[in-house]
Amino acid sequence: MKPLTRSKIKTPVWVVEKGKKRLRQDHLTTEEPLEIRLVSPKRTVAVTMRTPGADFELAAGFLYSEGVINCQQDIQRISYCVDKSIDGEQRYNIVNVELRSGLIADLQPLERHFYTNSACGVCGKASIEALRLRDYPIISSQLMVTPELIYTLPDQLRAAQSLFSTTGGLHAAAIFNSQGQLLKLQEDVGRHNALDKLIGAALLSDELPFNHHILMVSGRSSFEILQKSVAAGVPIVCSVSAPSSLAVSLAQEFGITLIGFLRGERFNIYSGMERIAVDS
Amino acid sequence: MKPLTRSKIKTPVWVVEKGKKRLRQDHLTTEEPLEIRLVSPKRTVAVTMRTPGADFELAAGFLYSEGVINCQQDIQRISYCVDKSIDGEQRYNIVNVELRSGLIADLQPLERHFYTNSACGVCGKASIEALRLRDYPIISSQLMVTPELIYTLPDQLRAAQSLFSTTGGLHAAAIFNSQGQLLKLQEDVGRHNALDKLIGAALLSDELPFNHHILMVSGRSSFEILQKSVAAGVPIVCSVSAPSSLAVSLAQEFGITLIGFLRGERFNIYSGMERIAVDS
Repeated sequence: MKPLTRSKIKTPVWVVEKGKKRLRQDHLTTEEPLEIRLVSPKRTVAVTMRTPGADFELAAGFLYSEGVINCQQDIQRISYCVDKSIDGEQRYNIVNVELRSGLIADLQPLERHFYTNSACGVCGKASIEALRLRDYPIISSQLMVTPELIYTLPDQLRAAQSLFSTTGGLHAAAIFNSQGQLLKLQEDVGRHNALDKLIGAALLSDELPFNHHILMVSGRSSFEILQKSVAAGVPIVCSVSAPSSLAVSLAQEFGITLIGFLRGERFNIYSGMERIAVDS
Repeated sequence: MKPLTRSKIKTPVWVVEKGKKRLRQDHLTTEEPLEIRLVSPKRTVAVTMRTPGADFELAAGFLYSEGVINCQQDIQRISYCVDKSIDGEQRYNIVNVELRSGLIADLQPLERHFYTNSACGVCGKASIEALRLRDYPIISSQLMVTPELIYTLPDQLRAAQSLFSTTGGLHAAAIFNSQGQLLKLQEDVGRHNALDKLIGAALLSDELPFNHHILMVSGRSSFEILQKSVAAGVPIVCSVSAPSSLAVSLAQEFGITLIGFLRGERFNIYSGMERIAVDS
């Protein structure tokens, strides 16, 4: 049971240029909520606005990068909701995840997304500490690459973004091997969803961790992007735009090489200089 | 009690250009979690990663655009957490909101952000329906503007983004009057936070609704941006990049003029053509 491809839809649009208007057909990126449900214990763990497509990968990647599951084997089965009481279109917006029998899912990490009555406060330090408590190892990959290899990534990302060229409305996350070859790319209206889809696809084909790989995301890199990178074990993370302060702190804590403002033959390194082979 | 300005911090960064590296001081946009708490009933209603600054406005705008409060008078007091058990830095990441005595806050709308055990499904139609049930009126503003006025907005937005020029890492939301003059601008690592800060600032100075105004956001426009625009009563919403399908549906349902790809002397109109005075 696979949904129709609904990642983009056609729409009429008025183009106004130099004071004149004309009607044109255009494509819009689809945005629809996805509800991720665990079968047992039966509960909704997330509702996220996403671009339909790679929904199973998104669910798997979300659960993995939030620390609810640790490997492919933790997932028994992923399926769309087949509840007859739910109408056709909506079924493809609900994904049921059945965990391995006997696995007690730790839903604690998800709590920060939701209502809490906890008395303890929040701060960047505490957010990083919470990840450390999940026992993610410091990333010790010996991967080393040249600046010339890094320069090639944005063009490869753009070339692979077939959807982007049509709608101009999608974020992308792509994973490259140590030779700089693009292995996988995923897109979504949400950058974090694109990365979850990418990680989930790798998880489902048992290709994690990404410990000899380079991740590139469109836009900027936030705490959330780095958190997912830590979970997937990525040693080098690149983005087109700026990182946030917390993204840099997290990269430093977990030994990730963090690159920002990667454009043309230029980029900034915020952490983990030792993986980039460059003269001074 | 006001926090130090912590919207950006200095950091050393390695700049790699044409195969050479050099060390430089750079600015990073601060990203820290903000916890928004209601005093009574005592509970956390949101934890969001945001750029510190305008935190009270962010809390007020969030509660307003989620439908928990309806006017300035619904808020009794907003303050940082002064609990002695919480250490200094963290206190500025927790905002307590005391509602007007006797106001029974409707927290139902927030549920979609959180765990739910509800059997009902999710889809774009249902998301729009949920807003209709909150009794937001169709936007009937008679505002009409010329394309020439619209062309001026991106440059005004950029000029006002003083932080952007330093860190390159912030989204912006700005509100303009019917003559195209910029009235207020807010920035944040999250586009939705920037808009909440903008709406919250207007709420606290009793300037809502924005029913004769134009909103402009950096980046793209999503369901969330349009949802907040509906709450604030904005008749014209512009963005630099693409809207999503659900943003367009929501704009059409609630009578909002939605403009995308606003660059130079060119833009697309996805909904509400009648507010733009243009020849064919």
